[in-house]
Amino acid sequence: MKDHKDFHMTPEEFRLRGHTVIDWIADYQERIESLPVLSRAKPGELRAALPEEPPETGEDFEAVMRDLDELILPGITHWQSPNFFAYFPANASGPSILGELLSAGLGVQGMLWATSPACTELETHVLDWLVGMLGLPDRFRSDGEGGGVIQDTASSAALCALLAARERATGFLSDEKGCDGTLVAYASTQTHSSIEKAVRIAGLGSSNLRLIETDENYSMASDLLASQIAADREAGLVPCFVCATVGTTSSLAVDPVPEIGKICRDENIWLHVDAAMAGTAALCPEFRQINNGVELADSYCFNPHKWMFTNFDCDCFYVADRAALIRTLTVLPEYLRNRPTESGAVIDYRDWHIPLGRRFRALKLWMVIRHYGVEGLRHHVRAHVALARELADWITESEDFELVAEPLLNLVCFRHRGGDDLNMRLMEELNSGGRIYLTHTKLGGRVTLRFSIGQTNTERRHVDRAWDLLQKTALELEK
Amino acid sequence: MKDHKDFHMTPEEFRLRGHTVIDWIADYQERIESLPVLSRAKPGELRAALPEEPPETGEDFEAVMRDLDELILPGITHWQSPNFFAYFPANASGPSILGELLSAGLGVQGMLWATSPACTELETHVLDWLVGMLGLPDRFRSDGEGGGVIQDTASSAALCALLAARERATGFLSDEKGCDGTLVAYASTQTHSSIEKAVRIAGLGSSNLRLIETDENYSMASDLLASQIAADREAGLVPCFVCATVGTTSSLAVDPVPEIGKICRDENIWLHVDAAMAGTAALCPEFRQINNGVELADSYCFNPHKWMFTNFDCDCFYVADRAALIRTLTVLPEYLRNRPTESGAVIDYRDWHIPLGRRFRALKLWMVIRHYGVEGLRHHVRAHVALARELADWITESEDFELVAEPLLNLVCFRHRGGDDLNMRLMEELNSGGRIYLTHTKLGGRVTLRFSIGQTNTERRHVDRAWDLLQKTALELEK
Repeated sequence: MKDHKDFHMTPEEFRLRGHTVIDWIADYQERIESLPVLSRAKPGELRAALPEEPPETGEDFEAVMRDLDELILPGITHWQSPNFFAYFPANASGPSILGELLSAGLGVQGMLWATSPACTELETHVLDWLVGMLGLPDRFRSDGEGGGVIQDTASSAALCALLAARERATGFLSDEKGCDGTLVAYASTQTHSSIEKAVRIAGLGSSNLRLIETDENYSMASDLLASQIAADREAGLVPCFVCATVGTTSSLAVDPVPEIGKICRDENIWLHVDAAMAGTAALCPEFRQINNGVELADSYCFNPHKWMFTNFDCDCFYVADRAALIRTLTVLPEYLRNRPTESGAVIDYRDWHIPLGRRFRALKLWMVIRHYGVEGLRHHVRAHVALARELADWITESEDFELVAEPLLNLVCFRHRGGDDLNMRLMEELNSGGRIYLTHTKLGGRVTLRFSIGQTNTERRHVDRAWDLLQKTALELEK
Repeated sequence: MKDHKDFHMTPEEFRLRGHTVIDWIADYQERIESLPVLSRAKPGELRAALPEEPPETGEDFEAVMRDLDELILPGITHWQSPNFFAYFPANASGPSILGELLSAGLGVQGMLWATSPACTELETHVLDWLVGMLGLPDRFRSDGEGGGVIQDTASSAALCALLAARERATGFLSDEKGCDGTLVAYASTQTHSSIEKAVRIAGLGSSNLRLIETDENYSMASDLLASQIAADREAGLVPCFVCATVGTTSSLAVDPVPEIGKICRDENIWLHVDAAMAGTAALCPEFRQINNGVELADSYCFNPHKWMFTNFDCDCFYVADRAALIRTLTVLPEYLRNRPTESGAVIDYRDWHIPLGRRFRALKLWMVIRHYGVEGLRHHVRAHVALARELADWITESEDFELVAEPLLNLVCFRHRGGDDLNMRLMEELNSGGRIYLTHTKLGGRVTLRFSIGQTNTERRHVDRAWDLLQKTALELEK
């Protein structure tokens, strides 16, 4: 009795087209190495090729897949290429992609426990698993006063942490009266830009963010933090939030969390630890020292969508006191009231982040952990770190290049000895060649090349070839 | 030359498992009507069935799929069921699910134009298409000074609008100095709770949000808005932001945007129009009056992930002055610098929202529009509205039930004449029966049942049967 389904894709057609798309992705995975890593598209090129007006009537699926190949693909920078060494790892995997697919197919909203209990409970459960897997403090587990939630990104996690910090510091008065320009937040000069963004969004004002200088390893100088806090108190300001980073974006530097944590505890300041890029390493006991001091943190986050084979988005955010976070973010209108919420026996994750709606992201994380097991995840993290150390050795032995910092984990920061201009030209030459993609930063005021090893299918041969290319291209540019 | 891929899912295995998952979803679509709409899971039930510890070694894909059926599915509330009439439409579709799958398979980061030009350009292009499709003002198009971007939710869109409003009102000083407790925002008593959340997040303080009373249609009383603004100015406060709603959550009421827009223009206040739930209706010329006055808005959003056959998340957010939004949200650290960004010829969407990273969400929207064509989308929107009108007629004709408001579009607000308690019991009885799922609100202080018609496969027979069930169940409860 079909009365108005005429335009929908039927389950049978979905099955057919779905197999086509799965095959397309499997083929893409097989041929990705043959594609230029950085897209060569010019600004406006794709838009010029697209029709100015949307289609009045529906089009064949084949036409869409043809445009995917001919128009979209040339405009793609292949983050999943094993020759992608830019920015940060962003390693998807088969089980993760299929988890995302299932989540889209189920199409549930996880805003409340009641709107799909499995969506909430699987998330809480997997996030508790990860506390054990990473050796994080038990205070982040949901069976005490803490708990974890999946956020889209570490930017949003940091914002939520800052908001809870703001409210704790003002006895939940900022929430009601608004900010008054006296709250101060602290990070280092190497901290991710998302902290500045959060400080501006939360109404503290960028002038109330103190960027503490770092030591020779680009780690926050905790004595300078302490003296800055004292100076601010002296000036009648209210220190409320410190962000310590475990693995900075530029160089994967680790801030001295034990010292910073002690200061925060003494001063009653909220400590957020951002381990977005490096946190996954703690899967391996031999790297677990990066968690030192995290037991002093009020909140913590790391990104499975960076280095744990889980496609974007999936940031795991933990708090030690979930009541403070929930009180900061909760609003309960009549249309969301329901018995389980009122019973107090369930988690409603809408009160743990900015958006109200949320998808079933725990599914992909669960499927990744079950596919790899702890053993498999550890194996690949170790392999990436070993490759980074090998590359660092080659650089140390070379005459033309130098290491800028000893690689702690999977990021190698180095430069050609020929100066900033040569390094920038070298990077651009390599990236436009399409065989590898790497990016830069500035450390100590000088251009530094960053070589991030963490894509799913990156093997020794890719790093080896990249190192060859780097040397040869540098020689050509010096001619 | 495989040296460390041992634990990864190979492309061949992905192909095999991918077909399994596609078939699972197609089967799910075919049998979804036979499942209880609202999950019957008890709090903690799923967690009790899951192993306390994560697997040390990887598990078979079959085991995961078995747990999906046996453990996860009973904890799912089936939002994609044609018998889902709760909250709001959240209608996924085949082309959208496959777009999400492709996006996960490509696994790109769209934070900068350079990190995947197609991800940015397709988004700008499709959002320009939608301006025409919905008859929105040209000032939201990217070829002038405006432009659109995909956000996760209308909550995040409203927050971004409020932040830009805050900065425009203070000459970008709040961004630097922080809020000072003098900025005031306005919405109605019927406005979505996300506005209060945004006001608190942005540091204005909930006491600086004025909830304006509504008229008998639950639309904001614009004269009361004007007098409140005058009173606030009198008191030395700074009105900066008004949110008008086109389709409130409780009853799909439409605020008088032309009047509100005129007030905002005279007072130089940022006007944000939230059309999250109802905006899709403007695809049809006969419903386009809901856009009246939107030409006076500074920002606007609607949710294809609600009523436009696009799976969550996908909120389209438009601004008339993109420079104000970008200036509010931009931070440019060295590691994100690149030539295209510096050329000024491209859009970097990271500056248009809270997170830095972003997935390729335009792909699913593009695939939906191409699959249905404008004609197909209109057809289904009209069918939903027609069903709502039909149900409203049945209610009007009945002796036991009454309409609470004339349904403008696809939401029917009604109640049993037997009082609040009976209505709540009726709803709970129906929901626990599993054959339909609907939710409530309060209008005029009284419990009101909400019947939202907008799921992809909802047909006349589903609404018909639901109405039968409502009447029969009410009779039984009255016995």
